[in-house]
Amino acid sequence: MSLLAVGTVAFDHIETPFGERDRALGGSATYLTLAARFMTDDINLVAVVGNDFPEEYVDVLRSRHINLDGLEFRDDEKTFAWGGRYHYDLNNRDTLFTDLNVLSSFNPVLPSHYTGSRIVCLGNLDPKVQASVMDQCHSADLVLCDTMNFWIENTPDALDALLGRVDCLVINDSEARELAEEPNLIVAARKIRARGPRILIIKKGEHGALMFAKDSIFSVPAYPLEDIQDPTGAGDAFMGGFAGYLSGCRDINPDALKHALVYGSVVASFTVEKFGPEGLYDLTRAEILARIDSFRDLTTIPLGQVAT
Amino acid sequence: MSLLAVGTVAFDHIETPFGERDRALGGSATYLTLAARFMTDDINLVAVVGNDFPEEYVDVLRSRHINLDGLEFRDDEKTFAWGGRYHYDLNNRDTLFTDLNVLSSFNPVLPSHYTGSRIVCLGNLDPKVQASVMDQCHSADLVLCDTMNFWIENTPDALDALLGRVDCLVINDSEARELAEEPNLIVAARKIRARGPRILIIKKGEHGALMFAKDSIFSVPAYPLEDIQDPTGAGDAFMGGFAGYLSGCRDINPDALKHALVYGSVVASFTVEKFGPEGLYDLTRAEILARIDSFRDLTTIPLGQVAT
Repeated sequence: MSLLAVGTVAFDHIETPFGERDRALGGSATYLTLAARFMTDDINLVAVVGNDFPEEYVDVLRSRHINLDGLEFRDDEKTFAWGGRYHYDLNNRDTLFTDLNVLSSFNPVLPSHYTGSRIVCLGNLDPKVQASVMDQCHSADLVLCDTMNFWIENTPDALDALLGRVDCLVINDSEARELAEEPNLIVAARKIRARGPRILIIKKGEHGALMFAKDSIFSVPAYPLEDIQDPTGAGDAFMGGFAGYLSGCRDINPDALKHALVYGSVVASFTVEKFGPEGLYDLTRAEILARIDSFRDLTTIPLGQVAT
Repeated sequence: MSLLAVGTVAFDHIETPFGERDRALGGSATYLTLAARFMTDDINLVAVVGNDFPEEYVDVLRSRHINLDGLEFRDDEKTFAWGGRYHYDLNNRDTLFTDLNVLSSFNPVLPSHYTGSRIVCLGNLDPKVQASVMDQCHSADLVLCDTMNFWIENTPDALDALLGRVDCLVINDSEARELAEEPNLIVAARKIRARGPRILIIKKGEHGALMFAKDSIFSVPAYPLEDIQDPTGAGDAFMGGFAGYLSGCRDINPDALKHALVYGSVVASFTVEKFGPEGLYDLTRAEILARIDSFRDLTTIPLGQVAT
């Protein structure tokens, strides 16, 4: 199935205890599409960049068969740029700067051949922009949506309207607690799903993720890694891997959703092993599959009665 | 198999957003034994209390078939007492007071019929006291040990000597990071196991636990609960449930260790649903088994290829 991902394509300035990068390729749409491309060849990116965006970065995406007809180039503005510095334990970071530039007036108009996309990924953006993309998609089987504390606090009405329309919300645990105004994650999940999304995925960084769908909860750990270079983009890569897996399924049933969660977790694990999106550049399906096998060992409760 | 648990029997003052208790029954040996008793009838408690310890609390343990021959009563001193206040999200707490009382001179001498115990649980205590109990046990198949930041910081040599002798260390994630002086948990685990324990269990509260044994890592989530009243003792109940499960096994093999981790997680989940150890008082094996079944649903990756 075709997959559309709207979000940012950005310059990232990244500092971790293990190194730094300046003006690295970044942005949610970058990670979403690079992570989603393993199960379908039909990936449609929607984003905007400025006159300073190098052809070399365009090639990173184009050479990986991501459709860039929806990437808008603005001649008179600069590319969105973000800078962050991670603490020693990599679980916390400080934002050094956020230069919106082209993003402040982003109002995407989809190429006509994008509008039939079946899986729609709304990366973290102004909920009104996310809604406008959704309005232009007429054949979506599944709409996934990310958001962040800024929109929860500053545009609650627009976010609420959007939540009533999407199938699957993908947020992290602190965002879930803030969105639901509830410290218990399980209660928070119930409250959030009552506002719209039938599927809720709560990302917990090094602690993995929880998926709430129908009456069940499914838990995946993060794949254990000794060498994490840079957590930037892990959440977007997770969502991209999840959505990308589903784009390769004929039927989005409960088992497929669980498999997709494992797939997203594994793709995210490759992302954090290198800086920026570099871990996704040459990643292969064979490498993903091998890691999924060890993922099963990590979580499978052996057969046999646990106790009598 | 017989199980010995040494630790504290205490008065706990507990404040959570959902209520408070004063001079409640508490202490690591209380939780360890109450949680361990479901798979064996041969549970030996070692602890000390003062002249203020009520018969009613002794009966809580005795009526549940916990052997109290190793519970020392001091006529001239008071029982160890601890007070804590949990924050709104239950993940953090402030210690209000710690009155060591009888604990400051605790030097347990095991009843002779305790010394053949096969599973030995060393609850969080001065590592020298833990070592002295270990010295008195001559038939242990498995020695499990807990510790805390106080001993990591103040008695590193005694702790290091103990680590070289125990089979299984059970600590929480912040303790693991501090003990190994390493922020990455997977690296920390490798460093800690190089100092002695062939099995390491890292407790992560609401995020579950990780077990490192041989060359494998096994991850369990916390059982999802909408109503958590009081997290006090959850870690001890987890360790007690884990050790208690193994006391019911003929062979402590890798599958048994994984089953024991699930069992410990489930027993801990019942503990936090009520104040203090009350959730363990009337708990039955049938209730534990039913929750283990839903635990499998929570973590089982469906059969079939995740991807090709």
